Amino acid sequence: MGSVIPLKKSANSAYLDLKNLLGNKLSRVEGLIEQKLKSDVGLIKQMSDHHLKSGGKRLRALLTLGSAKLSGYVLGDRDINLAACVELIHSATLLHDDVIDESSLRRGIKTTNSIWGNQSSILVGDYLLSRCFEIMVDDGDLEILKLLSSTSAKIAQGEVLQLQHKGEADLLEDTYINIISLKTAALFSAATKTGACLSKSNEKEKKALESYGKNLGLAFQIADDALDYYAKEKLFGKEIGKDFFEGKTTLPLIIIFQKGNDEERSFLLEILKKEKRNDDDFSETLVNLVDLVKSA
Amino acid sequence: MGSVIPLKKSANSAYLDLKNLLGNKLSRVEGLIEQKLKSDVGLIKQMSDHHLKSGGKRLRALLTLGSAKLSGYVLGDRDINLAACVELIHSATLLHDDVIDESSLRRGIKTTNSIWGNQSSILVGDYLLSRCFEIMVDDGDLEILKLLSSTSAKIAQGEVLQLQHKGEADLLEDTYINIISLKTAALFSAATKTGACLSKSNEKEKKALESYGKNLGLAFQIADDALDYYAKEKLFGKEIGKDFFEGKTTLPLIIIFQKGNDEERSFLLEILKKEKRNDDDFSETLVNLVDLVKSA
Repeated sequence: MGSVIPLKKSANSAYLDLKNLLGNKLSRVEGLIEQKLKSDVGLIKQMSDHHLKSGGKRLRALLTLGSAKLSGYVLGDRDINLAACVELIHSATLLHDDVIDESSLRRGIKTTNSIWGNQSSILVGDYLLSRCFEIMVDDGDLEILKLLSSTSAKIAQGEVLQLQHKGEADLLEDTYINIISLKTAALFSAATKTGACLSKSNEKEKKALESYGKNLGLAFQIADDALDYYAKEKLFGKEIGKDFFEGKTTLPLIIIFQKGNDEERSFLLEILKKEKRNDDDFSETLVNLVDLVKSA
Repeated sequence: MGSVIPLKKSANSAYLDLKNLLGNKLSRVEGLIEQKLKSDVGLIKQMSDHHLKSGGKRLRALLTLGSAKLSGYVLGDRDINLAACVELIHSATLLHDDVIDESSLRRGIKTTNSIWGNQSSILVGDYLLSRCFEIMVDDGDLEILKLLSSTSAKIAQGEVLQLQHKGEADLLEDTYINIISLKTAALFSAATKTGACLSKSNEKEKKALESYGKNLGLAFQIADDALDYYAKEKLFGKEIGKDFFEGKTTLPLIIIFQKGNDEERSFLLEILKKEKRNDDDFSETLVNLVDLVKSA
């Protein structure tokens, strides 16, 4: 469990390297988002400000910008515009996710749904997505429009697939990978592919960047799912054990199910059948998990 | 209150005239939607089938088709594709609305949220909207893409504005018109304008059809809001008095506030301040409303 902090440090340094490489571009993306979300409706402004100012690493925007730079895109602001779109798709998803997961904390601060209620969060999510499409349409590239609109459909499908398998202790690893490919990796790979589309990259280069984004997205989600079991809330910025308490089966539980003994397997089957799981269930699951990791 | 049935008959006949004028086009729109919503995720298929098969007049699709015909669009299937988009924007909105309003009935049958829960309904709404953007992108007309994506942002803004003013007995008529312009009339006018954009209509013709759609949308929403007070559930297909019980101020209440006496006004102020309103509150409000209409 002590691996979280060193991991965080090295991840942070790679992240800062990428960010520094891009000069002031990320803050220009943030400025553009703020400007495009302007609305005469006061509540929309308040909520989107709160949501966007609650930070986040803007990793997907950075990937779009970094990939554009790597592909040799230099002139113009299309990288800024499209990085903003990718980030807005992510933000819209987060607003809806927080309603769906009944989350009260994200990145250590209160979620919009916990302040303004679920109704407003659903609508402001819709607003963000619609504005994002407007920016894409202004950019006017039909290949990118096609890519990002199909990505948005994939994210929704991944989330529904996840709901459909809720409470399944014996979730197949393949199904898990399918879920996270759709709900997370699709947007990472769209981000890197979008960057490649901005310059005259050939199909092979586009494919390579798309594949890089996809694999990074898978790794990111697997790490995030592991942190739900391992991290300290202060570092993670989210509540710990949420997936477990909600009955969402992710890789750590799949590993117990694959590698555990009969007793561990039936314990898991039993507690995931329950309407609610308690702290003791979580502690026992953690013990099983640590034992398995140690013996691996 | 006896005006509902005759109104329904004459509205039905105008509706059928429009539908008959368009031959099999509406069923082609429905076929296209069904085909485009296909997903490997079983739950999405089930839910979108249920939602779409629960019917509806497809009024917005008909307006798109009718406006295209009126403008002289003949060759090709773009009218079918874009009528499907307009209808999908509406469907996505309805799925989210039903979650927001906690509705259990729409068009006389159970809503998706009441069967599969709010979480899935939010996500399937996102899926419908994303698929709709994919169809628009395939159509490839940037003017229409711009129109429909900004319409989608307007709908969300209208809904948030409505939430923001919930429980306000003294809502200004202007604010009410602004709310329904955004949440309802914007899509009606986008539907008729889209039809006009498909042929070589000049700006004046486009503007005229846009304006027709907008005014029809306003009239439609005002009638719908009135039916919430007047209709019989069997004919209306929705629960009666929902706006009232939710503290949503619409034109009937605005009229009481404008034309009522001091006693009626303070009654309204008082009951809208309450956390919940009961059947007696609704009956008394109806009596005040009928008195005002009779004396008008």
